This record gives sequence, C-alpha cells and structure tokens, in this order.
Amino acid sequence: MTQEVSVQEPTIAIGPDQPASRLLEKAVLGAGARIGALAEADALIWIGTPGDFPRTLPGSVRWVQLPAAGIEDFFAAGVFEAHPSVTFTSAAGAFAHSVAEHALTLLLAGVRYLPEHLRASSWRQREFFPHVGSLRGKTVTIVGAGGIGRALIPLLAPLGAHVIAVNRSGRPVTGPGIPGDVETVPTEQLGRVWSHTDHVVIAAPATAQTRHLVGADELARLKPSSWVINVARGSLVDTAALVDALARGVIGGAGLDVTEPEPLPDGHPLWDLPNAIITPHDSNPPQLRLAAFADHVGANVARFVADEPLAALIDPARGY
Amino acid sequence: MTQEVSVQEPTIAIGPDQPASRLLEKAVLGAGARIGALAEADALIWIGTPGDFPRTLPGSVRWVQLPAAGIEDFFAAGVFEAHPSVTFTSAAGAFAHSVAEHALTLLLAGVRYLPEHLRASSWRQREFFPHVGSLRGKTVTIVGAGGIGRALIPLLAPLGAHVIAVNRSGRPVTGPGIPGDVETVPTEQLGRVWSHTDHVVIAAPATAQTRHLVGADELARLKPSSWVINVARGSLVDTAALVDALARGVIGGAGLDVTEPEPLPDGHPLWDLPNAIITPHDSNPPQLRLAAFADHVGANVARFVADEPLAALIDPARGY
Repeated sequence: MTQEVSVQEPTIAIGPDQPASRLLEKAVLGAGARIGALAEADALIWIGTPGDFPRTLPGSVRWVQLPAAGIEDFFAAGVFEAHPSVTFTSAAGAFAHSVAEHALTLLLAGVRYLPEHLRASSWRQREFFPHVGSLRGKTVTIVGAGGIGRALIPLLAPLGAHVIAVNRSGRPVTGPGIPGDVETVPTEQLGRVWSHTDHVVIAAPATAQTRHLVGADELARLKPSSWVINVARGSLVDTAALVDALARGVIGGAGLDVTEPEPLPDGHPLWDLPNAIITPHDSNPPQLRLAAFADHVGANVARFVADEPLAALIDPARGY
Repeated sequence: MTQEVSVQEPTIAIGPDQPASRLLEKAVLGAGARIGALAEADALIWIGTPGDFPRTLPGSVRWVQLPAAGIEDFFAAGVFEAHPSVTFTSAAGAFAHSVAEHALTLLLAGVRYLPEHLRASSWRQREFFPHVGSLRGKTVTIVGAGGIGRALIPLLAPLGAHVIAVNRSGRPVTGPGIPGDVETVPTEQLGRVWSHTDHVVIAAPATAQTRHLVGADELARLKPSSWVINVARGSLVDTAALVDALARGVIGGAGLDVTEPEPLPDGHPLWDLPNAIITPHDSNPPQLRLAAFADHVGANVARFVADEPLAALIDPARGY
C-alpha cells in the first residue's frame, strides 16, 4: 500500500537547467511530489524567460507553471500555441500578499502619524496625542477586489476595521480570512462611498475607465483625517488634485507606491509634502518575489498531486 | 413573551452625573441593557475619579465597572472596602488593542524601510529594493504575553509571521485569533530565543527581573535585519547598548514608544539615528481610550445580561 502511493507521486521538473532555488525545491517536495528530470516529468515549473522555453516537451508533461503574473510575453513568444495539449498556470495572485502588506504599512503609518514622528527631534507627546489614530472601528474602502484587495482584507479585519470592497460585479467577496461583514459595492456605485469611508486603498487595474478615478471631487468628499493609499497604478489618481488636497489639509495624507508621472521627478511637490509617503514602486521587491512564487508553486503542486483544479489557469484562447 | 424579556433587561447607570458619552450609552444599549438612574440600577459604569465614588450604593447595584486598567487609586481610596458585597471590574485589557496596533505599525514601518523612504526626495527604487522586507515567514518574538501581547498575535498571524510568545509560565497562549502554531517559551528560556528570531516586540511589565532584559549580549545575537520594538517600559532595554547596536548596524532598527530616560531629552543620540523610530509614549492617546473603554463596557454588559462571568474582575483581597 505504501509502495503504491509512493509510485503515484508525480515528478516535477524545475527549469531551465540551473541550480534550482532551494525554496522552490522545498515547496515542491513539501507538497508531496518528487523532483526529477524533464524527460520523465509530469509537470514543469518554469523560472526562465519566454525565449528560453523548450520548443518541445516530453509527452508526459501535462502541466507547466510559469513564473510571472502577467504572461503577455509568453503569449507573444508563442509558448501556448506550441504546446496546445499542456495546461499552463501563471503566478497571478502570488505577489498580492507583499503589496497588501505594503498597503497596510502605508495606511497604518499614516493613521498613526509616523511621518511627523520621524521628523521630530524632541518629545512632543501632548502635541502628537490628538493626531495618533487607529483603524479600529474605521471604514476602509478597497477599490478593486482582485488579488491585492483580497489579500488586504484579512490583514485589516483583526485590526477592527470595517471593509468596503468595490468590484465590478458587486458580488460579495468571499475567501479565507475574509469576514462575512465585508460590504461589497459595485464600481458604478463607487460615487456613494466617498462620504461614507474613513480611508481608501486603490488596488484596481489601470484602464480607461479607472483613469483619475480619484480626483478633486472625490477627495473633497473624504475626511480631513482620511488617508488615500495607492498600490495599483499612478494613473488612477489625479496627481494635481491630490497635491492640492494634501497641501490644503482636505484629507489627512496619501501613501503612494505608484505615481503619475512615474518615476516621480526630482523637485515634484509630492516629495516635500509632510503628509505624503512615497515609496518608489518597491512594494514587491525582487527578493520577496521568489519566496512568494515558492508559496504559489507549493500550493499548486499540492493541487496537482490531489488532482484538484489548479490556481491561476491560463486560457490561451483569451490570452490571459 | 416579549414583555417578559423586556422586563428582565438590567438597568445600568453611568456615573458620575454628567452628560454621559454617547459611545458608552451606545455600548450599553447595544449589549441589551437599558440606561437608568443609579437609584434603580443593577450596575454602575463609573467614569469618575476614586475620590468622587459614591460612599453608599443602592442595594440593587450588584456590579461596578471602573474606568482604569490599574486600580491602585481606587484601592487607596477605600472604594472596595466600602462596598464589600459588590462585584468590581477594571478596564484591564481594554487598552491593549491600541498599543498592539502601534507595535505592529512600528514593526511594519521598520521592516518596510519607511524611515529611509520618508527622508528621500528622489526616486531611489533600485537602492531601496533590497531593504524592503516582509513579515511573511519571519519569526516575531513577543516578550510578555499579557493583554498587549495577546492582542498583537492576531494582527501578526495573517501577515504570515511565526510568533514566539514568551511568558512566565511557558503555558501555551490561547484565545480568539491566536493560531495553534504559536510557540510559547517560558521567561527563563528567553536566552535561547535571541538567535532564533527575526524581530522582537517588548510587551512585558517593568520589574526588577525585566530591567535591561535587552542589552548588548541579546542585541548581538539578533540579525542585522532585526527590529526591536518596545511598547512596554523604557527600563526593559539598555538604552546605551541599543544606541551602540543601532549605530553599528548590529540590528536593523528600533521602534520605541517608551524610552529610558523618559521623556527622551533633546539632543539624545536616539533622535538622530536613521534606524530609530521614536513615538513619545503616545500609543494609547486619550481620544482612543474612550472608544476602547466603550468596547470593553459593551462586552462586559453583554456578559452581565447573559449572566456570564465578567472580564477583568477585581479581587479586593489581592488589590488588583
């Protein structure tokens, strides 16, 4: 019986040929598969470029895991076309956690008045007291309930924040760590949210529809204590309107990992505003990506072993 | 039937006579009690001083909720002695959440390299990339598993941090939001933790035993990326050793809401170290205390209504 089970362990190859990351190997082994050569593999974890992807794969390979969340380049290189009978998965969602952690950091830093604290060189307790806030009992609206938004909700919930998730369909957002009292609002009703929220986190894709989603009107309806966090794309926020709102104290502050223009040029007013926290699009730095990818691989290998549906399936016909 | 139930709603008085806070009233009503005069009350929520506490209470009053976590002053004023048949509860634990949120903010700000980001006035992405860390997969040791420590664990868990809780007994720390994989280490084995943790949060009481618990030896066994957060009392950390470790990069940084000496004098080297975040003991500012107390009151009134054991019971014989 034990032998039968061990014979059924699928073999996973990691390619291209290079000293494979121990993190990845650990993830594969931990998920109940073994690691072997491509020639005898049931699946391939690919950590190389689209250009280096094998022209042919052994007939035994049923699944390929790609290393990127956006797979336009693999599409352009004809990788899916060349292997029509193989199931491909991307890394979509794998990197959401780091960006969500970054968004939480910017929001907490703002609410707890850290920028002013960091500038201080004397003990200004009485002066700072009224400015130190909390997320407890506050409403945080997350615009965009994709990977990042869904990863952020479980971080906000234990802080006692009430979450409004804005998504296209308005369908309730559910998932592990997402409490039942999350309110979901469809994008077309976003207008009624601004005056009912304490803070806003932008985590929606950049499209023609979402361009300058946050402008002067929206900022005016927020509170003088509100923080706006953008970890999506700079184009979603009207930078000129934001600079004006920050300078006049219309809102409490802004935490921006993305800007428009990007990179933010030297001398731009955002650099000097005391209530702006700028991080140079580094919420998902290279050294965190591998660990996150290993987690994603481990979870998908476990599904492959159990013959369950894989996460982040690519539909070659639709191109994503 | 409805009438019978409504007759059984206990009456809660809020005193001393003053326009009672709406937050408190809401908490009492939301917990299923009604608000009434002290003369007809089953319980008293006291938000005044020990000196103003009534010398006599109506025989109907079975429970008194006090507004402070430490109740030495009520003890000294003879309040418990004067009312031997009344059950008293303190606000112990009520204010832990705000301090835990503050500790999380300091830790995330450190790990995500916010101090250096806030000093920047140009787009230094490549330079910052290697310094942006994550709590995911990291070990955070919380020294002291009292109210603050227990409130912090549920905030760290969804970030993917592994938590080591250090308490006197070494008994497993359990409770709502505290995952089963939290490791508990008794204080006498704290020595073996330093070289096995990524970060340390100090949340233990100040006693003769905990004085300078973190000194040069302990800091030397941490990592160059480790952050030390102190939200307890300044005396638990040897300031001179910490300044040295921060200046030489022995650890990554320190987030201090409490210092020794406190207040930290102007010109102290901690003000100028780029890897120190100082907040002037403002992790639980006055305006957050009332909201936290209202939550505590609501939960205790709900227990009173349901005839369940009250939280933060005071034992007058032991004086706390």
